[in-house]
Amino acid sequence: MRITTVGLDADDTLWHNETIFRLTQDRFRSLMADVAEGPVLEARLAEVEKRNLALYGYGVKGFTLSMIETAMELTGNEPPGRLIAELLAAGREMLAHPVEPLPGVDAALAALSTDYRLVLITKGDLLHQEQKLAASGLGDLFAAVEIVSEKDASTYERVFARHGSGAARSAMCGNSLRSDVLPALEAGGYAAHVPYPLTWAHEFAEAPLGHPRFAELASIADLPGWVQSLG
Amino acid sequence: MRITTVGLDADDTLWHNETIFRLTQDRFRSLMADVAEGPVLEARLAEVEKRNLALYGYGVKGFTLSMIETAMELTGNEPPGRLIAELLAAGREMLAHPVEPLPGVDAALAALSTDYRLVLITKGDLLHQEQKLAASGLGDLFAAVEIVSEKDASTYERVFARHGSGAARSAMCGNSLRSDVLPALEAGGYAAHVPYPLTWAHEFAEAPLGHPRFAELASIADLPGWVQSLG
Repeated sequence: MRITTVGLDADDTLWHNETIFRLTQDRFRSLMADVAEGPVLEARLAEVEKRNLALYGYGVKGFTLSMIETAMELTGNEPPGRLIAELLAAGREMLAHPVEPLPGVDAALAALSTDYRLVLITKGDLLHQEQKLAASGLGDLFAAVEIVSEKDASTYERVFARHGSGAARSAMCGNSLRSDVLPALEAGGYAAHVPYPLTWAHEFAEAPLGHPRFAELASIADLPGWVQSLG
Repeated sequence: MRITTVGLDADDTLWHNETIFRLTQDRFRSLMADVAEGPVLEARLAEVEKRNLALYGYGVKGFTLSMIETAMELTGNEPPGRLIAELLAAGREMLAHPVEPLPGVDAALAALSTDYRLVLITKGDLLHQEQKLAASGLGDLFAAVEIVSEKDASTYERVFARHGSGAARSAMCGNSLRSDVLPALEAGGYAAHVPYPLTWAHEFAEAPLGHPRFAELASIADLPGWVQSLG
């Protein structure tokens, strides 16, 4: 078989993530309703997050710190009542949020795991990603788990060399064109995009339509058939 | 040779870490001087950290969130002036702190790397640990880097199976008896303790004096000689 290894993104590919961030942002907006208009708050939070990204990386803890920083700036360091305590609680609730596989994920992974080595490849907080995988009940289907700080072509080269037979014999699947699809193609592998209804602005990119090793799939349920069609 | 692989802890083994946490705690104590006595503050911070450890794991971002939570609790949610902004800044400064190898580290690693495979095995924030390794200039001496959420016997079994010839042919070196020494011995490997002047209370354990595969070393400068003596 040409393909020996299938890489899978985690957040918004196997389970909800961006939805949980958006729900927390909605909560942040209501908590700050007396202080700032929604669009002002969102613009400021995005600015603070961007400023902190190189230092905090991806994940809930950095996001919580950025919400607190935004709140302090917009309240002139006089946060009303329990605001900061509420933001800390919101962050903890995100970390403790129940994890449920998205529709079709269980069946797709079960089908793939009989013929291919499955590798989870994800960014984010190390401990939190491990906890989510454990809570999802999907852990046993994966031959390996790689939690990485950045997803570029060299990441995929390294991971597929370590856990598979090299990028050329691997297929990557995820919801982010920028992080899951484009760098995996650049590394020489195959890549499928399974969109999630929401995309974090930071992750936006154009689909490489017409690329010979790329597929746009409507659902993860189509992944096993596509991988098998690669031969 | 019996030993093929040497595992090294990072924080307080290769570079300062606990000192930076203590300096930040000193700063926290001065910022909170009007609110709480030093010992009261420290006890409360330790309590909050312990409560959050399962959710936040190890690292600077979780520590910063715990300082903020402690400050909010002790000020009845009315933090004076720039207190929270100062704590956020303290956290960012910890993340951006320059990294300098401890005395003897460069020479010991250079000597070991000619005969053994070196593997960095560390807990903490993924991105921050990668950044510290890059900043230390030691990255090229390591054949592999494993940033893990917990260090127990199964961690060492897995890492030394993946990157070496198994735990029985490996030696682990670190400043924590609890995290670096005892579980590596339990996995069947050799282990050396190189103490750091400060130990986080959470990491305390008794030295396994008399254990046939254990050594207490005064300095990392003694590590190459000990590893070679194992045959």
